[in-house]
Amino acid sequence: MNTFASIKVGEKAHFSKTIGETDLYLYCGISGDFNPLHVDQIYASKGLFRGKIVHGLLVASFISNVLGTQLPGPGTIYLSQDLSFINPVYIGDTVTTTVEVLKKISFKKHMILRIFCANQGGEIVLDGKARVLFDPEMQQGAS
Amino acid sequence: MNTFASIKVGEKAHFSKTIGETDLYLYCGISGDFNPLHVDQIYASKGLFRGKIVHGLLVASFISNVLGTQLPGPGTIYLSQDLSFINPVYIGDTVTTTVEVLKKISFKKHMILRIFCANQGGEIVLDGKARVLFDPEMQQGAS
Amino acid sequence: MNTFASIKVGEKAHFSKTIGETDLYLYCGISGDFNPLHVDQIYASKGLFRGKIVHGLLVASFISNVLGTQLPGPGTIYLSQDLSFINPVYIGDTVTTTVEVLKKISFKKHMILRIFCANQGGEIVLDGKARVLFDPEMQQGAS
Amino acid sequence: MNTFASIKVGEKAHFSKTIGETDLYLYCGISGDFNPLHVDQIYASKGLFRGKIVHGLLVASFISNVLGTQLPGPGTIYLSQDLSFINPVYIGDTVTTTVEVLKKISFKKHMILRIFCANQGGEIVLDGKARVLFDPEMQQGAS
Repeated sequence: MNTFASIKVGEKAHFSKTIGETDLYLYCGISGDFNPLHVDQIYASKGLFRGKIVHGLLVASFISNVLGTQLPGPGTIYLSQDLSFINPVYIGDTVTTTVEVLKKISFKKHMILRIFCANQGGEIVLDGKARVLFDPEMQQGAS
Repeated sequence: MNTFASIKVGEKAHFSKTIGETDLYLYCGISGDFNPLHVDQIYASKGLFRGKIVHGLLVASFISNVLGTQLPGPGTIYLSQDLSFINPVYIGDTVTTTVEVLKKISFKKHMILRIFCANQGGEIVLDGKARVLFDPEMQQGAS
Repeated sequence: MNTFASIKVGEKAHFSKTIGETDLYLYCGISGDFNPLHVDQIYASKGLFRGKIVHGLLVASFISNVLGTQLPGPGTIYLSQDLSFINPVYIGDTVTTTVEVLKKISFKKHMILRIFCANQGGEIVLDGKARVLFDPEMQQGAS
Repeated sequence: MNTFASIKVGEKAHFSKTIGETDLYLYCGISGDFNPLHVDQIYASKGLFRGKIVHGLLVASFISNVLGTQLPGPGTIYLSQDLSFINPVYIGDTVTTTVEVLKKISFKKHMILRIFCANQGGEIVLDGKARVLFDPEMQQGAS
């Protein structure tokens, strides 16, 4: 189990997933985001893209996966996040998400992490930074 | 149908949804984010919160709903986003998401929007800004 | 296995299901129907209803279940349907759907059926008629 | 926001979606309609069709989407509906649903609308009429 003290600046963690049609279609149902770029293959093929694109925030969900299950790990509380959506993601793409500790702010138990996602071709699709609170002892109820 | 020109600075749009357990559980399956704060009621009740909390990025998905279906509307392409997660959201909360146009950058067809979500008690749970590209004519295939 | 000839006018079949929140939330994702009467507990409680109501056509889906799996049975092709939505259905309601053969039109292999759904209190929630084509021999490949 | 008064006879609204396998499979789970025409590729290929067909009432769900979110809009209450299922819909088809106001019955706040769905080739797959109650002021709780 990670503690705030055990984590080092420069540590990294990864998660990879091939995005299925099911992911996109279920995500529409959670979010209500039926932008035709996500659900209408004909429309989505007419402009910048070659077909329906995956919601950027669906891809971003893999980041909170890594933050919340690996680095820093269970109990992480997400404070804020800056993200740029750089390249489109399509159904069937395999996205690898990387999280890297950039800075630790000990007195508040905060960490700043770089967060980015790349597709199977190595292109960055999403890039940004996150700030989290990581204090697993508190969460486990010392009181 | 909105065009870049028809949208005014100061315009707002809203979407409200009561977040069901189904939303949280399906979102775990899409994201792989099984942070115990989201899935373990016992653990999640021991620290800062009164039970399982909804993923911040699940709540953020309502933002791209409003951006992509209302304001600016269909065809919106998400470029970047800054978000702060300010208060926890629980299953059963009714979250109202508001988008407001802050600035239009005509030569690039970009817009900057304030984005925020509040719960049924009026507390802000999530606050930030988004930058989008909105050029529906391009998307509809001038070729 | 039913054949067109084996089915009698007056025959009935039933199906009952307790509608879960999951049903309603997944149905939003299929249909894109985020009418606040279906997804916003606060809004939906303010008018005619006591909370979020189940989509009428979700309830109607049980009808094609009975038609397509029991009476007339596998291979049924739905031709047309008249429906009235009479009472609201809420999450947790147990809906019993009944199909009854009203008429057989032999030369076309059509049947007219009464279709209705009632809740656990015996109130009719949905009522109507359906016309189907039932010719299972054709479907199973005369060639 | 639409009001009963602001809507004109002849107004139209549209929604398009590419139907995924996910939609069909989840719909089976909600409805229990496992008619082999929907779930058995071998069986469904032997008769009139070239493979598994999408449930007609799944396609019809897009109608209540347009009624409930666009025209008349949020707060619409579905009263009744006549539908004819005219052509099969297959997984991967992009279905465009159109709703058009045919008649307003002011003293009851009812509207009659034509409702139809067409595939990417422009063939009508489903056609009918709907009657709705649209009185958003009432819904928002004048008490």
